[in-house]
Order: sequence, then structure tokens, then C-alpha cells
Amino acid sequence: MTRTETDSLGPVEVPEQAYWGAQTQRSLSNFAIGDQRMPLAVCHALALIKKAAARVNDRIGDLPPDVARLIEQAADEILHGQHDEQFPLVVWQTGSGTQSNMNVNEVIAGRANELAGGTRGGKSPVHPNDHVNRAQSSNDCFPTAMHIAAARAVHDQLLPAIAELSGGLAEQAARHGKLVKTGRTHMMDATPVTFGQELSAFVAQLDIAERAIRQAMPAVLELAQGGTAVGTGLNAPHGFADAIAAELAALSGLPFVSAPNKFAALSGHEPLVALSGALKTLAVALMKIANDLRLLGSGPRGGFAEVRLPANEPGSSIMPGKVNPTQCEALSMIACQVMGNDTTIGFAASQGHLQLNVFKPVIIHNLLESIRLLADGCRNFNSHCITGMEPDAERMAEHLERGLMLVTALNPHIGYDKAAEIAKKAYAEGSTLREAALELGYLSDEEFDRWVRPETMLEPG
Amino acid sequence: MTRTETDSLGPVEVPEQAYWGAQTQRSLSNFAIGDQRMPLAVCHALALIKKAAARVNDRIGDLPPDVARLIEQAADEILHGQHDEQFPLVVWQTGSGTQSNMNVNEVIAGRANELAGGTRGGKSPVHPNDHVNRAQSSNDCFPTAMHIAAARAVHDQLLPAIAELSGGLAEQAARHGKLVKTGRTHMMDATPVTFGQELSAFVAQLDIAERAIRQAMPAVLELAQGGTAVGTGLNAPHGFADAIAAELAALSGLPFVSAPNKFAALSGHEPLVALSGALKTLAVALMKIANDLRLLGSGPRGGFAEVRLPANEPGSSIMPGKVNPTQCEALSMIACQVMGNDTTIGFAASQGHLQLNVFKPVIIHNLLESIRLLADGCRNFNSHCITGMEPDAERMAEHLERGLMLVTALNPHIGYDKAAEIAKKAYAEGSTLREAALELGYLSDEEFDRWVRPETMLEPG
Amino acid sequence: MTRTETDSLGPVEVPEQAYWGAQTQRSLSNFAIGDQRMPLAVCHALALIKKAAARVNDRIGDLPPDVARLIEQAADEILHGQHDEQFPLVVWQTGSGTQSNMNVNEVIAGRANELAGGTRGGKSPVHPNDHVNRAQSSNDCFPTAMHIAAARAVHDQLLPAIAELSGGLAEQAARHGKLVKTGRTHMMDATPVTFGQELSAFVAQLDIAERAIRQAMPAVLELAQGGTAVGTGLNAPHGFADAIAAELAALSGLPFVSAPNKFAALSGHEPLVALSGALKTLAVALMKIANDLRLLGSGPRGGFAEVRLPANEPGSSIMPGKVNPTQCEALSMIACQVMGNDTTIGFAASQGHLQLNVFKPVIIHNLLESIRLLADGCRNFNSHCITGMEPDAERMAEHLERGLMLVTALNPHIGYDKAAEIAKKAYAEGSTLREAALELGYLSDEEFDRWVRPETMLEPG
Amino acid sequence: MTRTETDSLGPVEVPEQAYWGAQTQRSLSNFAIGDQRMPLAVCHALALIKKAAARVNDRIGDLPPDVARLIEQAADEILHGQHDEQFPLVVWQTGSGTQSNMNVNEVIAGRANELAGGTRGGKSPVHPNDHVNRAQSSNDCFPTAMHIAAARAVHDQLLPAIAELSGGLAEQAARHGKLVKTGRTHMMDATPVTFGQELSAFVAQLDIAERAIRQAMPAVLELAQGGTAVGTGLNAPHGFADAIAAELAALSGLPFVSAPNKFAALSGHEPLVALSGALKTLAVALMKIANDLRLLGSGPRGGFAEVRLPANEPGSSIMPGKVNPTQCEALSMIACQVMGNDTTIGFAASQGHLQLNVFKPVIIHNLLESIRLLADGCRNFNSHCITGMEPDAERMAEHLERGLMLVTALNPHIGYDKAAEIAKKAYAEGSTLREAALELGYLSDEEFDRWVRPETMLEPG
Repeated sequence: MTRTETDSLGPVEVPEQAYWGAQTQRSLSNFAIGDQRMPLAVCHALALIKKAAARVNDRIGDLPPDVARLIEQAADEILHGQHDEQFPLVVWQTGSGTQSNMNVNEVIAGRANELAGGTRGGKSPVHPNDHVNRAQSSNDCFPTAMHIAAARAVHDQLLPAIAELSGGLAEQAARHGKLVKTGRTHMMDATPVTFGQELSAFVAQLDIAERAIRQAMPAVLELAQGGTAVGTGLNAPHGFADAIAAELAALSGLPFVSAPNKFAALSGHEPLVALSGALKTLAVALMKIANDLRLLGSGPRGGFAEVRLPANEPGSSIMPGKVNPTQCEALSMIACQVMGNDTTIGFAASQGHLQLNVFKPVIIHNLLESIRLLADGCRNFNSHCITGMEPDAERMAEHLERGLMLVTALNPHIGYDKAAEIAKKAYAEGSTLREAALELGYLSDEEFDRWVRPETMLEPG
Repeated sequence: MTRTETDSLGPVEVPEQAYWGAQTQRSLSNFAIGDQRMPLAVCHALALIKKAAARVNDRIGDLPPDVARLIEQAADEILHGQHDEQFPLVVWQTGSGTQSNMNVNEVIAGRANELAGGTRGGKSPVHPNDHVNRAQSSNDCFPTAMHIAAARAVHDQLLPAIAELSGGLAEQAARHGKLVKTGRTHMMDATPVTFGQELSAFVAQLDIAERAIRQAMPAVLELAQGGTAVGTGLNAPHGFADAIAAELAALSGLPFVSAPNKFAALSGHEPLVALSGALKTLAVALMKIANDLRLLGSGPRGGFAEVRLPANEPGSSIMPGKVNPTQCEALSMIACQVMGNDTTIGFAASQGHLQLNVFKPVIIHNLLESIRLLADGCRNFNSHCITGMEPDAERMAEHLERGLMLVTALNPHIGYDKAAEIAKKAYAEGSTLREAALELGYLSDEEFDRWVRPETMLEPG
Repeated sequence: MTRTETDSLGPVEVPEQAYWGAQTQRSLSNFAIGDQRMPLAVCHALALIKKAAARVNDRIGDLPPDVARLIEQAADEILHGQHDEQFPLVVWQTGSGTQSNMNVNEVIAGRANELAGGTRGGKSPVHPNDHVNRAQSSNDCFPTAMHIAAARAVHDQLLPAIAELSGGLAEQAARHGKLVKTGRTHMMDATPVTFGQELSAFVAQLDIAERAIRQAMPAVLELAQGGTAVGTGLNAPHGFADAIAAELAALSGLPFVSAPNKFAALSGHEPLVALSGALKTLAVALMKIANDLRLLGSGPRGGFAEVRLPANEPGSSIMPGKVNPTQCEALSMIACQVMGNDTTIGFAASQGHLQLNVFKPVIIHNLLESIRLLADGCRNFNSHCITGMEPDAERMAEHLERGLMLVTALNPHIGYDKAAEIAKKAYAEGSTLREAALELGYLSDEEFDRWVRPETMLEPG
Repeated sequence: MTRTETDSLGPVEVPEQAYWGAQTQRSLSNFAIGDQRMPLAVCHALALIKKAAARVNDRIGDLPPDVARLIEQAADEILHGQHDEQFPLVVWQTGSGTQSNMNVNEVIAGRANELAGGTRGGKSPVHPNDHVNRAQSSNDCFPTAMHIAAARAVHDQLLPAIAELSGGLAEQAARHGKLVKTGRTHMMDATPVTFGQELSAFVAQLDIAERAIRQAMPAVLELAQGGTAVGTGLNAPHGFADAIAAELAALSGLPFVSAPNKFAALSGHEPLVALSGALKTLAVALMKIANDLRLLGSGPRGGFAEVRLPANEPGSSIMPGKVNPTQCEALSMIACQVMGNDTTIGFAASQGHLQLNVFKPVIIHNLLESIRLLADGCRNFNSHCITGMEPDAERMAEHLERGLMLVTALNPHIGYDKAAEIAKKAYAEGSTLREAALELGYLSDEEFDRWVRPETMLEPG
């Protein structure tokens, strides 16, 4: 069962139950590629823009009040998730996102016309271009929606998730602030650290990444809206850009402003490239964290075995009783994905031409995926791994006391060269540092006791 | 409504309608990350492996015949797509894919037990580990499934799609083999080519990429199956590896063989990295093709405008009557995605440790996505862009006759330096080459006619 | 001619003229890989650290004053470029940069010992470890040197270079602020812009990138020094970290501070990953700029031909008189390199283990290369391309008046659908908008004159 | 001291001692960017092309015999390394490499003219364009030189280096073929392997990578030469392409042939992208190998400590006696670099326009760097790490006998679930498998002896 909708190319049959019109339908048949749908967050952001635009247009008298009201009502329904199945288009469409902008325009018009007492779809009393898209172009709507969706995802999902993981790590670091263990550089035994110090590095790395993400946000909060087709703002009234940015800020609770240069906002995506770079910074930190815990948890008998990670599931389909660091694995796979997504985003963002970059869908698809994966990954990793992990204090003590790099404490007393001689002798003979030191006659038993004390090797001085 | 299933960690409630068991259910709650499901192609490949294993195990008497038959029957149902909703796990799980292997083991056992007249689920008469996973480990099943899924996607989807696009381009090249136009290097006017020659480059680039893909396949056809947990083949009978490879070859119609070194097949994914590199080669060629057609189609009044691309949809929500090279845009976004996926795959594949690489799900997720996007992209681009495009012969002729680089034909007659003088003079004065040449007195009108003939500048000699 | 130097592994022959000692010599023979030397900027930064450390150690009485003075004197000679040939080690050495740190320690000791009246080299009166490296470890020196070298390169080279290019573009934008031309989206003719507006986008894109770079700097100004071997600060006196950061700030004129968490500063390189992400943002903007000018300069007869780029050199070895956008080409190759370097940096930074990341040399090598290339690239591009480019106003006018998207101005008057009809008719018939509009009867000649005026289509309202 | 040279743009002063002419000099002043010189291997390859072209042109009578002889003589001097300082241009020049092609043309002409008894430089009797560049364009010469340089580097440097490393690993694998040790998956203890099996995986991974590299070579052996300016072969005589390919094959000893489609050979670089993908495959394998040995060598007291890597140098400037896996570190940094270079190459290769890709210098610079680093890295790693490493058999035995995954051998006897119970009990209580098994009553002491024998767990059956 279909009905007929038309656009400037002519009539098209659309499914009866669809609110969308001719252009959405054309996109469906012209782009049968993959199954990555345009992120719903983008469609919702477009609906938010339509609502804000209707309000501004209404206020300045550029829309009949009832048309404005109908648009707002239909947009609200979308924002409440009532029409999610009405946005079937894929990422691999026109690079300006025009088809998804028209999808939203058409669904709003189609629903508004139904609300107006008429039938579903059509262009009257509400026209998808002349009314819903009033004073707008896909070229400013779509990048605005990209920024809105990205900003929301960062604020609502990612920052809280980082805080959660950071908090979980900080708690464990505090809990084990006095537990002395072997430090390792080049993966080789080195001078001591506490387990709390070791974990504090992770918190600090997350802090740096979070700082980078926060610093990237001001540019993301600058919106292209008002630039219309090429950045000049043609067909938008004076002041429209600022007014709609203010409206969007009010509606979303995020401090959006109008971008200072609309030409750049349409043709470049530097703010999102910079954000992706910050996301990659987080991925890099997470990779390190996951790898370290995997390493410290290795064993249980033939590895480092200094940390026991939670046993959440049977680890092997063939080896009975095996437990694996599966949360570390999921998190590090996410890190790989985010790094690849960053490659895609940078490449795509560099390929704009003149007044428009037409790689918008692939950029926002990858960016939102990175944000979502990082957010879910941080939260999941914290709740299923960090909060439940336990150090094996006995094993740590065993490694510590057998370690050779405690010899470093002797540098200020007997010099680097003699200290090296002691360590090399102990290693070659499988003896202890003390034995080697005494045998070489470089210090007395009592001096060894005074100078080589792991618990005093944890800070300057 | 749930029922209780158990694994080595204890009991778990699973939804009544699920065929899966405890381990699948644990993964669902332990990995609430993203929405990228383990590709169905991998789950189906795992089911194929289970079927092949049941046959081999049956043949050598390691499975009760009725158990083997039940496993095969359940696996066949999966292969016919009857249980696709039974594979709900996401990519972001354990890095060995153990949970998806167990998902398949559990669904087969759960369904087989139901078929056996008992109730859904459970471990008797068919046990997910002891029977369905017999002589197998996730560590050899999952990489085998990766190779099967990749090989099938390349053979069934990608190679035919490349052939389709290449054929479409070759047809257009043949059609316009004599249409002479301006060649361009550095994006600047250069000596002439035919439109057919220009398009022949695309065909040749696709050929090189296709050759690279084909060359990557033999290593992909080598299967890890038989290596079991760490590559030694422990718990698999002698000859199992070759037997199951032969069985899989017979079942799939693809010439799979057993990998010569199972340790490498579990711990490295070089064959898939090499394949991804070949996919990137294709992406690089497609990017060039899409960019060239976008460039040649630019205009209609203020660009190159030598080619008219099909007008498949209205191009702008604000600019009436605008037509855009949307198929080029979708294809070049795909190229960006494939290049980023290649980064992810290489990074992930490099991160194996000792006897296992635990980045398997992210590798196969990205690889299958690249294959699918390239396949869909090639086909869609051919049918919606290449077959319908038309050269604007008039515009080509206009560019050709005004071009200055026809002067190159004079090199053998008057030397490079004098030829340069002519071209520079014509450019500076906005005149024709002939006018400049005659004015400088370097050749006669008649010599110009004889020497400067675009139609003779299209081949050596 | 050699002399004998020793380290903890025994004696080594070093060339007579070398100031370095045993460890540098060992690195030379153990790492015969490639020809990328450790950047001189890193070696100089290490020398600056040695000078600052000598001052701090002297002040607190941890070094004999004459030893401190000798160290400072030798370090100053290095900083004045007198010993650049003494740093022969390559990037592909130990991942902590220990060998380059020891290279600097040895050269300073070797030169100091010579200055002290003794012979070149040796360990007395100045010892490379006990004195020059006093209170330090390679593990804190090298990352400190990375940050110093990066901060200096950004401040001294990159930011001024961006300002130069941005200034050059802004000047051209101001010069051509009223020159109306065809805007283009999807590379297709769109509504008008001024050439100044078009160029203003480039300035704005550079601004965003520059902002990202500036925001990345505070984290780079935080120094690892004082963490010594594993981050605890073992063998450094209390207060050393802050004191040496202050000393380095004073010596360099850059506001360096001590990193809040030294464990993170040794084992992670998130600040440099974030900086590299910002550099990539700049690369993305430069790629766009170079591509646009290449496109606008295409022709001279068969392309856009709206801008004449300077003819700096003959463009072809075979086509006489050809001029190419060579500066655009160099700049866009740089953009590609920076994007690849960013991949390397992110990957390398993710690979730390426990208390140390041992991918330091490859990270700083790539980062400094990116900074240098971007800085040189911006400056060179400005002076050899931007300052000399000229719009072809005649060509711009010709494109403008023939353009079909001026029809957009009719939307508010006759609606999108009728406007589309006009544009499509004009395109199909090769006619002008006016002709098509009048023929369709949608507006009068006088209305066309009033409504379709490019010079009024350059701003909102 | 300078002399005056001229090109089509006018006179230029060049240094007296230079053989080059005006165009090289212009490039020097127009491209003051970075310090990466055009690889000498490319300049030598260009000289080889000039020699081959002179021979072919001489043979068909298109060059005066004495001019041909002079060109060949000058080219030979270059090929013997007598003029390496005459190629000062950087990578960041025109993207076609025209300036380096002209550099070679000018140096050959400049030297030939000197040899002819005249003075250095100039254009007579040998002209850089009309004679040295006869029947050629930079657009076919430069990609030909890229392929020649890449093919030579792969054949002369890389393949032998892979063989060396592979041989070293195979030798160690053979030496330790019976040394049983703990296998590990997910970095956790798993069922046993021999050290020889573990090392055999590395050999197999190198084999796959080497196979990928070899498969990429046929496309690299296809040369662009003969396509001249745009691929048509204008100004080259009939048969020139095949003749010069044959000449180059004869001169180089590599089976070069003429590319089937010259348009593709100028405008795309798919063969080099595919080769780079194969190089990345090798990098991925090397990363895994280096990481594994770093992990197995971790300790000496608090890590895996199953392998002793050679102690080539003191490891720390502060920790006396420390030994680090520095060769692993250098090799893994190289892997990161190669992966970033692959990103650069793919991006650059995708950016061709119409008849030419103008990212040639950055592509070949990165490709040759990757080849060189991989070759040097493999050789250095083999000689300084692999040949000297020793397993610690005692430690391996200790890990093996304490391992819990030997329980897997019980699966066929008591089933997965009971076996899991045993392993979990032993883990929880810190006991041995035997103790747990007996206590649970699942098997007898004698059965344990018969079934749990590591030396029988190393193969199927």
C-alpha cells in the first residue's frame, strides 16, 4: 500500500505508513549501501533545529503561527522518540546529509499535515522546504546537527563515564596507597612503587584526556546554523543565526553560540577533527590501562600474577576453569576502533571543496561511534573490572624482595659503577643483592639494612 | 519468563524463548557496550564449522551418531537463517570470540536438545562443550570462522561487484573511445586524451586492486581449525585439521585448506591484514574515480562540466533545481571508512600476545564492514552513476581547441624552449597558439596545421 | 685512532675525536638502523636539562661547585651548537631514549673533563652518571626533553608560521572583499559569495586549528623531571622537581611547570597525542586550502580558472610553458605526512607498559617532523603562493552571470518548487534563468531585476 | 661564485660547482621545507632511466650518437655515486617530482657538456629537455623511478633481511624443539607448547608477510615509462615503452615490463599502496614478535623470565646493572612508523586528479623509508637479539608444573564440567591439580599420572 508524493523531479510512491516524502524515498532506492543508519542522535538534533527554527520564524513573523505550532508539535513527537522508525536512511548517502535533513523535513511536514486534520504526508498546509526548512539549508542544518549530537553525547555520556572510571581507579588507588611492589620499566624489574602510585598514573592519564576533550568543546558549541546554502546566510533574516543558537541553547541546556565564520563552519570540520584527536587521546590512555591490568593479572601461575581480576565468565570453551581478562580485551578493542575512526574522520574532514565539505555523514557516524564506545567502555570496564579487582599482596612482596633494582638506592652512597657491579653479580649467580654486596666488600651488612629499604624508595629525598 | 542454565561459574537465568545458555547470557550482561553485533556471517560460519566437526567426529567415532545428527540438524537451521535472533552478542566482548563461539555451541545444543524430544536448552543429550565443541576450541574455531566469513564475502559479494563496476566503466570507455578532450595534469590543461582513455585508467586501477585482493585470498583460505587451544591440536584427533578443512571446502564450495602452522593462525592475523591492505588499494582507486567524475561533472556553468552525471534526486533543500554528484560522495565516504578500518585492523592484529591474538572480533567486524561497503558501493555507483553518465562533447571540444598544451607537439620540430615561448605568449595575451606561433615566426601557418593536430596526439609515434 | 672508554659492561674503543663514551659507542654498533638521527632539538633540550640540574644540584650542595660549573660550561657549548656532530645516534634505539640521554651525559662529561685540564672523555673529575645525570634518570630526562623540544618548536616555529599564513590570507580576503563570484557546494555552482568571504573561511579554519594547538600546550608545559626512574623521584632530593622546572622555565622563557603526576608523565604521552591531534587539525585545514586553490586555479583554459597562482618555475619537462600549482602540492603532501605521523604517534603512545612507555624516540621524531613541516609549509606557501595570487575578475563575473543557482533568491517570493522548475528548464535548454522564468510566467522581467541580484545575496536579510 | 643558467622563465644564478641548472636552483629557493631530501635511490633510478632512454633513442636514430654516449657516460658516473651531492632537492616540491627529474636531466646535461670539452652546465651540445629527457616526461619518468627504487630496495634489502631473521628464528626453533613450556592465551596460562613451537609461529608469520610482499611485486615491476605527459605516449616513438622496459630490465637484472595501461600508471599508485599494505603486514608480525620476546624476557625476578635476551648495553642511567629488551623496542618503534607511513601512502595515493597523481614524492619517500627500516630492523634484530637469546629451561619447567591448564587433558576422560571444577578448586586453594582432583574423587592417582602428561599434550591425538 503506497501513496504518491512528489518533489522537483516528479512523483514517487511511498509506503502508506511512512510520514516521509519523495526525497527520502528516492534516497532509499538510490543508496542501497551497508546497514549503518544515519545516527538517530543526528535525526533528533535535526528535529530540535526544526523546532528552534519554527520558534524563531514565528517570532519574527516569517511563518504563520499555526504552521509554526504544527511543526513544533511534530518535532516534539520525534524528540520524544515516537517516530524513530521514520528515519531509515543510511550514512552512505549524499555527503551534505541533505537527504537526512529532507527526511526530517518531510516527516515533520507529513506528521504536521496529518495533525492539521488532513491526511498523512503531502506539502500542505505545512511544506517541508518552504516551512519546515524555512531560513535553513541542509548545508547549515546538518553541521549544526552534527555539533549538537556530538556535544550532547560528550556531555551526557562520555564525561560522566570518564568520571566513573576515574573515580573507580582513584578509589582503588587510595585503598592500596601503602602497598609496596616492584616498579617496572622496559617491562623489567625496576625500583619500587606502591600499587596506589601505579594506579594513580591511570587517573592522571584519564585527567589529561578528559582535559583535552573539554578543551575541544568550545569549538563544537559553535553552530553553523544561519549560514544557509554557502555561508552567506542568504534567505535567512538578519539576526537569525544568533537567535536560533540562543534558542538551541535554551532547549538543550548546552551553551551553544553562533559560529563566527559560517563559511568555515560549512566547508571545514576542524572542531570535530580536534575532538576526535582528543577522543584518540582517551583511547590511548585506555589502551595503556587495559594492557597494564592484563599484564599484572597474567598467570595465575606463570605470569606476573600481582592482581586478580574478577572472574566474570568461564574463559575457555576447551580449557576448564580458565579465567581471562575479558574486560581488558573489550576495552582495548574499543581503543583500536577509536584510532581507526580518527583516521577516517581526519581524512574525510580534509576533503572539503570550496563552500562545502561533503563527507559529513561519515564524519559524524564515526565520531558518535567513538564517543559511544568510549563511554560504554569506560563504564563497563569500571563496573565489571576495576571495582572488583584485588591485588595479590603476597605475590607483590615476593617479587619485591627478590628484585635487583633496589640496588639503585646505593648510587648516592657508593656510586653507579659499583652498584652496577653488585646487581650484575647477583643476577649472574642467582644470589641476593645483600650477598653480592657483602661478597664484593662495597658495604657492610648494617649499611645494607640502612640504605636498601623499599619503603623509603617511594618518594624524593 | 526464564529458565535456569548453568556453566562452570554456576546458574544463570536465561529468557525462556532463548536457545542459548549460561555463557551467552553472562556475556549479554557483562558487555553492555555499543550496538555493533557480532556479524551474522561469523555466527553462520561458526555453525558451518560445528556441522563439519560433527561430521568428522561422527566418521571417526568420537561422537554418538545421533548426537552428530542432531548437531548437524540444528546447525542447518542456523545456516538457513531460522535462528538469526539467537546471536545477540556484541563485538566488544572477549577478544578471542569465545563468547560467540559458546553462543553458537549453546544455541545448537539448546535446539538439538529440543529436537531430541526434551525441552529447549540444557546440556543433555547434547552438551555444548563436550559434543558441539568436540575437538575444538574457540581459539581455532573463531579464526576459522573469520576466514570463512571473509572468503565468502569477497567471493560472493566483492569480486562480482568490482566486475560490475569495471564492466560498466569499460563499456563507457569503449563507447567514447574516439572522443578527444583535454588531458590534465596537476589539474592544469595538458595534452589531449580521449574520454575512453581517461575512463580506461579507472578500469586498469580496478584491475590492479582486484589482483591484489585475489592474491590475498590463498592465505585467507588457510584455516586455523585443528589447532584447538594453543595451536598444538590437543584434544583433537590426528588428522582432524585436514579432515575438517576438506569438509568445510566441500560444504562451502571454496578451496579451504588447513593452515601450515596453527600457532601462527591463532596468534597472528597477517592474512587478514594483507587482505585489508588490498581492500584499501581498492578504496584508493575508488576515491580517485569518484573525485575525477565529481570534477569532470562540476558546473554546470562554472566548472569543468565535461560530463553530465545522472540527476537522481533534488540536490538541495534550499537551492531549487540543484543536482549534485551524490553517488561520488557516497563512494568517497566509503573509501574514507575503509582506510580507517584498515588502521584499526592493522593496529589490532599487531597486538597478539604469545599463543593468541585477542582482538579477533574487532578485526573481523571491520574487515567485513569494509568488504560489504566496497561491494555495495561499487554496485550502487555503477548502476546509479556510471551507466547513466554522458559526456558533453561540445564542452570537451571547446576546452580542447582553446588549450595551450597542444604546443607540446612542436617539441620535436622546434625544441622545448621555443615551444615554451609560444605557449607563454599565448597565455599572457589571451591569444591562440597559432597566433602566438606565427607572430614569433617560429613556424608557418601550414606547419602549424600539419603539426598541431589533437587527433594525432593520442598515441606514441 | 681510538681511546678506551668503559661502562658497566666493560671497555669500548671510541674514536679519538669523539667526546662521547662507551654507551654512545655501543648504541652506534648495536643500532645500525635507518638514517633518522635523534632530533638535535632533543639533544639540545637534554643539554638544557643538564645545565638546569647542575644549577639546582649546586644550589643544594649535591654537586661540587667546580663540577657544576664545568657541566654548565660544557652544556652551554652544546646549546650554542658547537658540538652538534657529537650526537650521532639514531631514533631506532632503546625506547626510553636512554642512549641519547647517556650520549649527552657522556659528551658533557667528556668535554668537561677536557676543560678541567685533563684529557677528553673519561669519568673524572666529572662522571656522566654520578654528576651530569645527578638526581635524574633517562626516564624523566627524556620525556622532559620531548616536551621542551615540542614546546619550543610550537612557539618558535609553528605559531609564527600560522600567523604569517593567516595574515597573508586575511590580507587577500580584505583586498577582495567585494569581488562577487559563484559559490559552490558539492563542487557544483551554488549561490554567490565574495572572493573575500571564500578566503575568510581559510583564515577561520586556521584559527580553529591554532586554537586547538594553543589548548594543547598547557599539558605539554608540564614536565616529567623529578620522577627519576619510575616516577617516585627516588634519588632526587625533595623539591627537585619544582626547582628544576622553574630553572628550565627561566632558561627557556617558556612557563614550564612540574607535572602533577610523574608516574603518568613517564608511562604515558597523552599530552603529545593531544598535540598531534591538534597538528592534524591544522593539516586538515591546510589540505582544504591547498585543494581549493588548486581547483580555483585549474585551467588556464579548461578549468575553473578563477585564480591565477604565481608561476614560480616551469611546470613540465615535456609540456612547454606549463605552470602548475606546485606550492599547493607541497603543502598537501605535508598534510598527508602529518596525518600518517599522527597515526604513528597515537599507536606508539598507546603501547606503554607499567611505569614506562618505551616508544619515546619514535613519538618525538614524528611530532617534531610534523611541527617543522607544518611551520615551513605555512611560511613557504604564504610567501610563494598566497601573497602573489590574483583573482581573474573577468572569469568570475562570467561564471556568476551564467550561474543557475541565483534562482534561490526567488524562494521567498515564489516558493522552492516553482523556483526549481525555472532552474531545471534553464539547464535543460541552455538558456538563462530570466528567459526560463519569463517563459514559465512565474514572475515579470521587472521582478526578476529586483529579486535576482547577486550583490544582495551575500548576507542574511 | 656563480654562473648563469636559464630556463623558460629566464636566467638564474647557480653555484659554480653545481652541475645542475636553472630549474633545480629555482626549486631550492621555492621549497625551503624540511630536510627530507628526495631519496638518492630515486635520483639514481632516474639516472638509470636516462641511460636506458639514451640507448633506445640512439638505437632508433632519435639522438646523435655522441650525445647518447655523453648522456650514458654522465649517467654512469651518477650511478657510481660520483655526484650524490648534486641532488639537493627535498621531498616537499612539486608533486609530480618534475623538479627532481629536471635535476637529473640538468646534472647529466651539465656534466655531459663538461665532458664534451666545453664548460660545466648549459644546454649544448647536450640539452636537458631535448636530449636527456628525449621521449620522456617527468610524468612517466618519476613513477618509473619510484617503481625501480622500490623494487630494488625490496629485492636487495628487504627480502634478504626477512630471510635472515626468519632463518635465525628457525634455527632457534629447531634448537629448542623439545623444550616444553607453558602456552598462554589471553596472556593467561594455557596448555603446553614447546619453545620451538612458540618460535615457529614467528617464522610462519614472517612467511605470510613475505608472501604478501612477493605477491605485490609483479605490479611494481610494471613501468609507466612511455606514457610521457598524460599516458598517451605523445612524443615517444612507437615501441618506445616496451624497448625501454626491456633495457631497464637488462640494466637492473629485475624483470621489469611496460605497464599495460599508462593512464593508470601516471594517475594512480595502487601497486605501491598494495606493496605498503604488505609492508604493514610485516610490521604487524614484527610487532608481535618483539612484544612476545619482551614479555618472555620480562623480569629477571618479577616477570615471565622464560627467555634471556642478550645484554648489549647498560640499560639505565640511574638503575645500575639493569638490562632492557632494547632490540625489541627499536623493532616495535619501526613497526609503528611503518603503520603510520602506510596511512600517509594510502591517503596520498587516493588524491590523484585526472591524468596525474601529484603526491608522488611523499609516497616514495614513505615507502622507501618503510622498506629500509624494516630491512635494517630485521637484520639488526636477528643479529643483536635472536641469535643470542637463551631460554631459561628451569623457569619454564617451574611454570609448567605449577600450571592449572594441564587439566584440559582430562576433558575427554571426565568431561569439561568436572575438569573445570578441579581447576577452580586448585586455583582457589593454591593447591596442585592432582591434589584437587583426588580430593574431588574424579580420578585416581594412577589415572592422573597417565592422563596429565605435558609431553603428550603437544600435538593432536
